[in-house]
Amino acid sequence: MNRITLQIHCKDQTGIIASVTNFIANNNGNIVYIDQHVDREQDIFCMRLESEFKAFSMESFKSNFTSVLVEKFKMKWRIYDVEEKPKMALFVSKYDHCLYDLLGRYNSGELFVEIPFIISNHNNLKPIAESFNIPFYHIPVTKDTKAEAEAQQLKLCKEHNINFIVLARYMQIVTNTLINEYPNKIINIHHSFLPAFIGAKPYHSAFKRGVKIIGATSHYVTTDLDAGPIIAQDVASVSHTYSIEDLIAKGRDLEKIVLATAIKHHINRKVMVFNNKTIIFS
Amino acid sequence: MNRITLQIHCKDQTGIIASVTNFIANNNGNIVYIDQHVDREQDIFCMRLESEFKAFSMESFKSNFTSVLVEKFKMKWRIYDVEEKPKMALFVSKYDHCLYDLLGRYNSGELFVEIPFIISNHNNLKPIAESFNIPFYHIPVTKDTKAEAEAQQLKLCKEHNINFIVLARYMQIVTNTLINEYPNKIINIHHSFLPAFIGAKPYHSAFKRGVKIIGATSHYVTTDLDAGPIIAQDVASVSHTYSIEDLIAKGRDLEKIVLATAIKHHINRKVMVFNNKTIIFS
Amino acid sequence: MNRITLQIHCKDQTGIIASVTNFIANNNGNIVYIDQHVDREQDIFCMRLESEFKAFSMESFKSNFTSVLVEKFKMKWRIYDVEEKPKMALFVSKYDHCLYDLLGRYNSGELFVEIPFIISNHNNLKPIAESFNIPFYHIPVTKDTKAEAEAQQLKLCKEHNINFIVLARYMQIVTNTLINEYPNKIINIHHSFLPAFIGAKPYHSAFKRGVKIIGATSHYVTTDLDAGPIIAQDVASVSHTYSIEDLIAKGRDLEKIVLATAIKHHINRKVMVFNNKTIIFS
Amino acid sequence: MNRITLQIHCKDQTGIIASVTNFIANNNGNIVYIDQHVDREQDIFCMRLESEFKAFSMESFKSNFTSVLVEKFKMKWRIYDVEEKPKMALFVSKYDHCLYDLLGRYNSGELFVEIPFIISNHNNLKPIAESFNIPFYHIPVTKDTKAEAEAQQLKLCKEHNINFIVLARYMQIVTNTLINEYPNKIINIHHSFLPAFIGAKPYHSAFKRGVKIIGATSHYVTTDLDAGPIIAQDVASVSHTYSIEDLIAKGRDLEKIVLATAIKHHINRKVMVFNNKTIIFS
Repeated sequence: MNRITLQIHCKDQTGIIASVTNFIANNNGNIVYIDQHVDREQDIFCMRLESEFKAFSMESFKSNFTSVLVEKFKMKWRIYDVEEKPKMALFVSKYDHCLYDLLGRYNSGELFVEIPFIISNHNNLKPIAESFNIPFYHIPVTKDTKAEAEAQQLKLCKEHNINFIVLARYMQIVTNTLINEYPNKIINIHHSFLPAFIGAKPYHSAFKRGVKIIGATSHYVTTDLDAGPIIAQDVASVSHTYSIEDLIAKGRDLEKIVLATAIKHHINRKVMVFNNKTIIFS
Repeated sequence: MNRITLQIHCKDQTGIIASVTNFIANNNGNIVYIDQHVDREQDIFCMRLESEFKAFSMESFKSNFTSVLVEKFKMKWRIYDVEEKPKMALFVSKYDHCLYDLLGRYNSGELFVEIPFIISNHNNLKPIAESFNIPFYHIPVTKDTKAEAEAQQLKLCKEHNINFIVLARYMQIVTNTLINEYPNKIINIHHSFLPAFIGAKPYHSAFKRGVKIIGATSHYVTTDLDAGPIIAQDVASVSHTYSIEDLIAKGRDLEKIVLATAIKHHINRKVMVFNNKTIIFS
Repeated sequence: MNRITLQIHCKDQTGIIASVTNFIANNNGNIVYIDQHVDREQDIFCMRLESEFKAFSMESFKSNFTSVLVEKFKMKWRIYDVEEKPKMALFVSKYDHCLYDLLGRYNSGELFVEIPFIISNHNNLKPIAESFNIPFYHIPVTKDTKAEAEAQQLKLCKEHNINFIVLARYMQIVTNTLINEYPNKIINIHHSFLPAFIGAKPYHSAFKRGVKIIGATSHYVTTDLDAGPIIAQDVASVSHTYSIEDLIAKGRDLEKIVLATAIKHHINRKVMVFNNKTIIFS
Repeated sequence: MNRITLQIHCKDQTGIIASVTNFIANNNGNIVYIDQHVDREQDIFCMRLESEFKAFSMESFKSNFTSVLVEKFKMKWRIYDVEEKPKMALFVSKYDHCLYDLLGRYNSGELFVEIPFIISNHNNLKPIAESFNIPFYHIPVTKDTKAEAEAQQLKLCKEHNINFIVLARYMQIVTNTLINEYPNKIINIHHSFLPAFIGAKPYHSAFKRGVKIIGATSHYVTTDLDAGPIIAQDVASVSHTYSIEDLIAKGRDLEKIVLATAIKHHINRKVMVFNNKTIIFS
């Protein structure tokens, strides 16, 4: 059995769902999952569909789908082979909690993904990469060498056919060099409940403001700092007894879980992005 | 524009979604919502669908749908006119918090429902019913008069074409007389995180056990006490500083929100029940 | 038995706790609750203490405490008679959900408080006030009459010896006229997770930003808009399926609970304020 | 500076707090933390206190404290040197998620603890122990060898002066041999929201019951299965779309966080146990 995932979006119109499900049926496919969302403000229709086929040719499906449906409804669409593991590049810096967490999940089979390599601007986490048998590239970044470093990062990603990048507490701002090559494909974890506490040292700001709840946010990276489409968020209660160090420690748990959640949504092709917002099909 | 909601379930088979969406399209309907779930353990397919029609006859739709699809797939199905407000009977006892909460939501238009009357085995809450201009029936219940009281309750429900019943901290056990007439249509709020602390005085049991989190559960009433299909649950953190009274006070907030959530799911026809479990389409 | 609550703060010094507990013992008091917090950044010591006395004179306790301890440690302190119900003024506008919620709690005895009156700039909620037998004052507010209106509000508060004011979705900005008379004694509910979405229409902003969690924040009113000391916060998960109206409906539940929680902390004298942050003794 | 933590409990009586704080002051100690709780049902007074001393002899403090206070108030008490790291034995089986999580925290300095060794009834997790440079003892357990295996475990614990034991998804039932030697010093993580779903396969039971929230519970091990004093609990929302495998995956995150939280409370001597319930001083 071949299994595919389709993501479709277009202007909202009558008959799209019937046309698409019909097309699948006429091609001897069995729909095993369908979900859709209409953004009434934007008048945009989005659909996610999984289908099984006994006999399947990706080539001919694509060509038929295009001629029968894409032109008629002016669709934008993506198709994925469900069995195909996405390739994920991991960027880290000195903090190890998200790295341990992700590699632990990877090791236990929780993440349906390949991790061809880990990149870091420091050497500290190399032993962790090695203990999980994942190649580790140390690419230092300074103001002067940033462009060069990103070129090197990009080269590695291209060589390994990387599908998406995860910034697992990578403490550098990523520029257009990478962002334009991986639009809505670079996942960051920000250690605050966005849009509160954008930028550096959010736990210090949270402490100063005296909030009773802290949070973490995973989002796609855009050129606007910490302003990209939000994929996942979580929060935890805190109190006046929490020092900044306590907030940071508590926050680590949030960061780990929120980043892993966002990655799982992405890996399972459950995310669609419109208008700087995500649709997460459940 | 006429708008309908369809709920369908049957054995999982190839082509159901295409057939149904096709049927809608052939009848000039526009699907505005579709969601489905396959229970792999039971091999059961469930679908919820909303569709708009410019011209619509409920009669002929039902007859066509039956002849074209229901027999072919051996479906069980329900159809609802989205504009038709369900009629809800409210059963209360002496506690007023759920009653105030529900009537406040009703008053503000948050609940798409009619409340033809309130029934209670005590007279205490009559003034609240009156302040919201809702008829209040005092039907006392004792061991000896229980059967008679339920007959009276049932008679009122029938007279007013009640669609579903809400037990808003109604402190009596309801028997088959009502349950059989309203299967999966009697919504109860239980003041614990089921299946923990079934039965009476759950906050006392929670206190004794020293739990760090308490909960509330809304479920459909079946003949098994507190064992019916769960519709909604919520929890709150507590600590050793909480007395039983504190647990009860905190629990009231949970009860209000969980019951209201369950009612909204039911009113919007988002709930399907199988095998003593609910599917809540979002 | 007389029961008092003491709140003390001063520069952190050796021996404060022993001196104070000693003083209570020497005055034949039995300490039934003690909690303290040291703000290491500010080097400030805060303590909350409850004590029972068989014989008690507020006058002489105050005078002894001052001469023995206050001068020695340069304390700022407050003393409360636990049996004395604080007097709370309720300010509302057109939204009724917080009003219903608070009056329901008040009615059931959950809030240890007196509510001498309700003030509103609109007449809409008068019937609710009346159904709970609480005097309702309609004081319209326009740009031109704002100063006059606040003078009237203040006069009412003074006449009734109001201890603190609750803005239960009162949609007006309160000025220094009231703030200076009731420092850290005006409790507002803001319908966002502060410091995110300060100001008007936070649910609209949350929808636009595509957050996955919304919140509500109760804080003391200061002259900085929505920037006063935070007393309580809570959040709820949302998704792309939520319209702005859905966010608003979900938010109402948060607002009710968060405001009630903050009021209970205040009523029970559990809150101390330093440096624009609260300490909430549990 | 020497720093100690005191835990005291006795029948509730007048003057305890003053007497203890006085004693500290007379011994030139500075109290930096004090919290207390009175269990009104049991009439038991509990207190936790941290104090700093410039000059300090544990010997003489103990002897003085005993003669001045312990006899007078019939106290039970414990004293801890804050600088002394507790020694924790880790028992695991085949699941690695809690092990990775705890060792990651340990490595980063988040846990103030020594881990002299890891014991397992299987060899699978040995490489993880080695990558963190912690001795790993493989002690197989069968029905027939259980007594012998526990004797070996106990011997190791004694040799290394183990203070407490953590069962990090150790899938064996521990008997009196260990429990009696480490009363309220064996911490287990149970993968359900206790008291719901006691015993084996709680996620399967949760799936069958159709709960909308799952949980995890960390508790001290007693001879009653899964019925010991609860230290920490947490929950997560789930839906009908979750398979049993999804519940298990989501549950792993809860287990990690709840177990780590319980261990931190224990390490920081924040837990007191009475009547099969815990007091967690914050």
